[in-house]
Amino acid sequence: MADNHRDDALIVFTPSGKRGRFPLGTPVLQAARALGVDIDSVCGGRAICGRCQVVPSIGDFAKHGITSKAEHLGPVTQVEVRYDEKRGLKAGRRLSCQTLIQGDCVIDVPPESQVHKQVVRKRAEVRDIKLDPVTRLYYIVVEEPDMHQPSSDLERVYDALRSQWGIEQVTCDLDIMRALQVALRKGEWRITVAIHHRMAGKVPRIVALWPGFHDRAFGMAVDVGSTTIAAHLCDLATGEIKASAGLMNPQIRFGEDLMSRVSYVMMNPGGDKEMTAAVREALNQLAREVAKEAQVEINEILEVVLVGNPVMHHLMLGIDPTELGGAPFALATGLAVTRPAREFDLELNNGAYVYVLPCIAGHVGADTAGVVLSESPHLSNEIMLVVDVGTNAEIVLGNKDRLLACSSPTGPAFEGAQISCGQRAAPGAIERIRINPETLEPRFKVIGCDKWSDEPGFEDEIASTGVTGICGSGIIEVIAEMYLAGIINQDGMFDGSFAERSPRVVQTGRTFTYVIREGEPLISITQNDVRAIQLAKAALYAGVQLLMDKLELKSVDTIRLAGAFGSHIDVKYAMILGLIPDCDLKHVHSAGNAAGTGARIALLNTAGRDEIEQVVRRIEKIETAVEPMFQQHFVEAMAIPHKTASFPNLSTEVTLPQTKEIFAVNADGSEGRQRRRRRG
Amino acid sequence: MADNHRDDALIVFTPSGKRGRFPLGTPVLQAARALGVDIDSVCGGRAICGRCQVVPSIGDFAKHGITSKAEHLGPVTQVEVRYDEKRGLKAGRRLSCQTLIQGDCVIDVPPESQVHKQVVRKRAEVRDIKLDPVTRLYYIVVEEPDMHQPSSDLERVYDALRSQWGIEQVTCDLDIMRALQVALRKGEWRITVAIHHRMAGKVPRIVALWPGFHDRAFGMAVDVGSTTIAAHLCDLATGEIKASAGLMNPQIRFGEDLMSRVSYVMMNPGGDKEMTAAVREALNQLAREVAKEAQVEINEILEVVLVGNPVMHHLMLGIDPTELGGAPFALATGLAVTRPAREFDLELNNGAYVYVLPCIAGHVGADTAGVVLSESPHLSNEIMLVVDVGTNAEIVLGNKDRLLACSSPTGPAFEGAQISCGQRAAPGAIERIRINPETLEPRFKVIGCDKWSDEPGFEDEIASTGVTGICGSGIIEVIAEMYLAGIINQDGMFDGSFAERSPRVVQTGRTFTYVIREGEPLISITQNDVRAIQLAKAALYAGVQLLMDKLELKSVDTIRLAGAFGSHIDVKYAMILGLIPDCDLKHVHSAGNAAGTGARIALLNTAGRDEIEQVVRRIEKIETAVEPMFQQHFVEAMAIPHKTASFPNLSTEVTLPQTKEIFAVNADGSEGRQRRRRRG
Repeated sequence: MADNHRDDALIVFTPSGKRGRFPLGTPVLQAARALGVDIDSVCGGRAICGRCQVVPSIGDFAKHGITSKAEHLGPVTQVEVRYDEKRGLKAGRRLSCQTLIQGDCVIDVPPESQVHKQVVRKRAEVRDIKLDPVTRLYYIVVEEPDMHQPSSDLERVYDALRSQWGIEQVTCDLDIMRALQVALRKGEWRITVAIHHRMAGKVPRIVALWPGFHDRAFGMAVDVGSTTIAAHLCDLATGEIKASAGLMNPQIRFGEDLMSRVSYVMMNPGGDKEMTAAVREALNQLAREVAKEAQVEINEILEVVLVGNPVMHHLMLGIDPTELGGAPFALATGLAVTRPAREFDLELNNGAYVYVLPCIAGHVGADTAGVVLSESPHLSNEIMLVVDVGTNAEIVLGNKDRLLACSSPTGPAFEGAQISCGQRAAPGAIERIRINPETLEPRFKVIGCDKWSDEPGFEDEIASTGVTGICGSGIIEVIAEMYLAGIINQDGMFDGSFAERSPRVVQTGRTFTYVIREGEPLISITQNDVRAIQLAKAALYAGVQLLMDKLELKSVDTIRLAGAFGSHIDVKYAMILGLIPDCDLKHVHSAGNAAGTGARIALLNTAGRDEIEQVVRRIEKIETAVEPMFQQHFVEAMAIPHKTASFPNLSTEVTLPQTKEIFAVNADGSEGRQRRRRRG
Repeated sequence: MADNHRDDALIVFTPSGKRGRFPLGTPVLQAARALGVDIDSVCGGRAICGRCQVVPSIGDFAKHGITSKAEHLGPVTQVEVRYDEKRGLKAGRRLSCQTLIQGDCVIDVPPESQVHKQVVRKRAEVRDIKLDPVTRLYYIVVEEPDMHQPSSDLERVYDALRSQWGIEQVTCDLDIMRALQVALRKGEWRITVAIHHRMAGKVPRIVALWPGFHDRAFGMAVDVGSTTIAAHLCDLATGEIKASAGLMNPQIRFGEDLMSRVSYVMMNPGGDKEMTAAVREALNQLAREVAKEAQVEINEILEVVLVGNPVMHHLMLGIDPTELGGAPFALATGLAVTRPAREFDLELNNGAYVYVLPCIAGHVGADTAGVVLSESPHLSNEIMLVVDVGTNAEIVLGNKDRLLACSSPTGPAFEGAQISCGQRAAPGAIERIRINPETLEPRFKVIGCDKWSDEPGFEDEIASTGVTGICGSGIIEVIAEMYLAGIINQDGMFDGSFAERSPRVVQTGRTFTYVIREGEPLISITQNDVRAIQLAKAALYAGVQLLMDKLELKSVDTIRLAGAFGSHIDVKYAMILGLIPDCDLKHVHSAGNAAGTGARIALLNTAGRDEIEQVVRRIEKIETAVEPMFQQHFVEAMAIPHKTASFPNLSTEVTLPQTKEIFAVNADGSEGRQRRRRRG
């Protein structure tokens, strides 16, 4: 098929399969661009950035109908040799900007040379992130001033962006105008500009510049929780996480939970400003930490994406959250916000921008929007239930056709608060527990120790921390196991007769207590503890049931449990207790810190921002406080398990994706027993 | 033509003549809007603002084909009665939002009820300003939050703007989000928002808000000169100037003229920041002054428009002007700038915006852009020469087809600097002078005194100030009169023989001096003074000639002299001296502070901003320093009058529009003499 007499040649790019004929002598990068092949470049074809590397494929390509020969590309240039010496070029690779077409050729664009490369997520059941950040770098060569054609430096920068990158209309801030002349002269009329492509009105904006060539740009995705703040620093060119860090939210000194912080503002005029300053300082501290860890200059951070619950959202934005403290729980704004980072007092690149995801409703915040973006129920054909359990539980239910959201007032029991021996997940906390249904003896695992409590050497290993309490996942398990062992009944009441069977069940006044571990501190579960968990789980389930009613559903196809609690609980026990509705356990997944992942998607993918803004707009917001059925569902869901539950799959082996723990449900025979009880 | 059986009626609006049929019961305002009739309203038809007043025209209107009867409009409503009691309603006027159509009617919209009213300029030869400010007020009634339909307060504000004003897409800053909830509750869900309609990307932005109804909005137009800063406060609803104030530019302490200020920056790192702070503080001071004078709250100022020469432009923006101090005189940016006033450290409404007009070139600034917008050579069919004389002369020449601009280095002689007895225009300065060609005796007028020096009582009237020097217009006249009297020749050299004719001509060393007034101080004109004016006028004329060459012109149709100098000089003498080219004196006008007027147009008229940005882009920028012909023209223009000049109209009576002084050229016979000399 090769035609030696033609003065053009057929070029096929893989993996896209895009093909076209080009005059001999055309640089491969230029051909790729003409065909819309996705090849990266910061330097605009000047052999500086090395992002446009390609691999010529040599051989007969019957399916493409061409014979690709090495000599069909121009010889390796001096420029490429110098690039190889300076920055290294893998064998077989060429810089597409320097490689001239001399005949038919098949050219492969490796993933790392693609602008829109996929950032692979670790979880199998979710989609990957397509890299397409809002802020990108452009190296330009600017015309020098000419008194015969007077024009300003900025106009010549705009001209360069137009002619060298096809960017037609641009704006910039005063700071850029101020820095421009020195940078142009220092860089000898070569500069790199960072352009933010997602401004209101769609006019791209120059947000940063460097003299000469600069190809490092980073962004930070932050999940601002009421308790902890977690940040990831990402390379905007690769999508890689370069560093991560977490902090306690310093607002804790104003109140442990959200409502006590809102109360603080109500009682202390200006208190919101103190809390805004505190959270912003924490963001600055995190930025410094991740930048240091990743060896990144703080002014190379050009983007920040923030998620948080509505109160955190308002405080980050500097908005008084008082209105969120009482009905009708009106958000000041639920819309996504794109504003300069300096307006948030963030000390990053002076042109850095913050993007805050939209809030869904007064109780369903930008963190839940992040969860939605991460788990994508809006793209699902099947009915997906997404639950993010914290102090409240945010619940999203639906599929690509319809999506509902609400927040359910679970209270902090699932986090170990309001439980007599409850504590946060930390070394010394019981996180797993099994109760022998015959002897009522417990065995348990403690955070920070690999052994179960009945294994030899356990006491030695925990000597340093001791056993200090029970964290959320442990509480779920112990209540479920107490139920499976018959210590408590469906109504959550202790069976007093068990006090005669075992010293583990102790009468205390008019109620009973189950003792897990004697000593100091005494670890036990009281009737009040059981009641607290019942209330919490009833609230959660009632919220889920409310949304299921709206969609007229009896069951859901798939469940995603987000947040720290969702990552650590054993879904089997969640189902035994009746936290979640009927669903094949194979399709119940922990989503990890899905809110943070959503923030990272919005950081790396422009379309992700459009997507979540559109999705949030069409989510139907349900306020449980005004739904008469919520109370009824709540009352009904107090029982263990909830009265409508069935357990279709509790006998199968299930995998918790995050913890990779595999457990067989029937290991201790509990499944049979539990079935018996349901029938009875 | 009236048809009593129809259930609709014909309505004709005057003066627009727009007409249409509407169902009986339609409010007149609604009918007007449906027809696109220009009727103002801030309250959106709620009988609060009173801006929508109309005058029903009663009678037979044959030309419109209808009979308009009083009873064809619904009776005056209680709402109108209340409005009349509270705010007053002129007899015969109705609030169009409350007046219902009951039959055919002719309705007049008086000028003050039109949104786009004309702001009448005082000068006859220029166009009026169409009122259409960038920032407008909108009163809205916002839905209260509803837990059954949760949405954020901001989203409901956007909904109200959409449904009540048809404004589809809006954004706002964090500050608005912060202030919104309190304002909504204080105003009981009624607020007034100010919207800026000219953001990059065309998405309107809420920049300010008030609880309840608010209908006051002001803007400030400022001409930032190197010597003085002049501000006008305008009512954005009427276009009226409510107050004016001026200040010396405090940067003078860093250097009298522009180049010495640029030198200060070069010698003192950070000196630009000092000067930026100084000019911004002056702007704040002016804002406080005009606000106080007009009894306006400082936070009712929502807009500022700034003009200034390139160095002032850069310093106002906080840009180091060093590059403007030497070739190639590269502007950092020449583009128009729209940025929040707080970025300029201006203490106005927190959401106020600054608009800075574009610069034309490194020596032709935003002030000249203002002059162009005011004088509109780009709309002229005839060839117009616009000259703004300051320390340099900015020259614009052309018509609607082609426009050229340059700056000519006249130096400050025209402002009285570099002249032995020169001074700024201030009481005590000689501003007019005549020399008797026979006796060589002068008679003159002094600023602050109505009498000529040879009139009785002159000495008494000037006793308080004395005669302190000669200002720019006086210098032009004295040199021209000296030439007409023969004291100096065409080359500007003193004729030594005159020393024998009169004691007014005195030999001083190898040169001569013309003594205007003996005493302390001695007021006289030296050979060096004549030379300084020759250099200045030659520079000006050479610049004009250069542009005339480019357009292949021998004369121009009309001349506008802008700036203080242009307002005060007698154009006849300007022509005698050869400052300006051939032109019918009837068509030579003073443009007053045209730069400031241009700023005012940009303040009041959105389209004016688009217009000047487009015009500046197409102006051909000429840099005199690289034009070989400039030197030649300069040398040739040293003679008095310039060698190519003719004086076609010096015998007619001419009127200086600004000063309204009428003078006959031939009053002292000088015209005949001058003609003789030209022939000789």
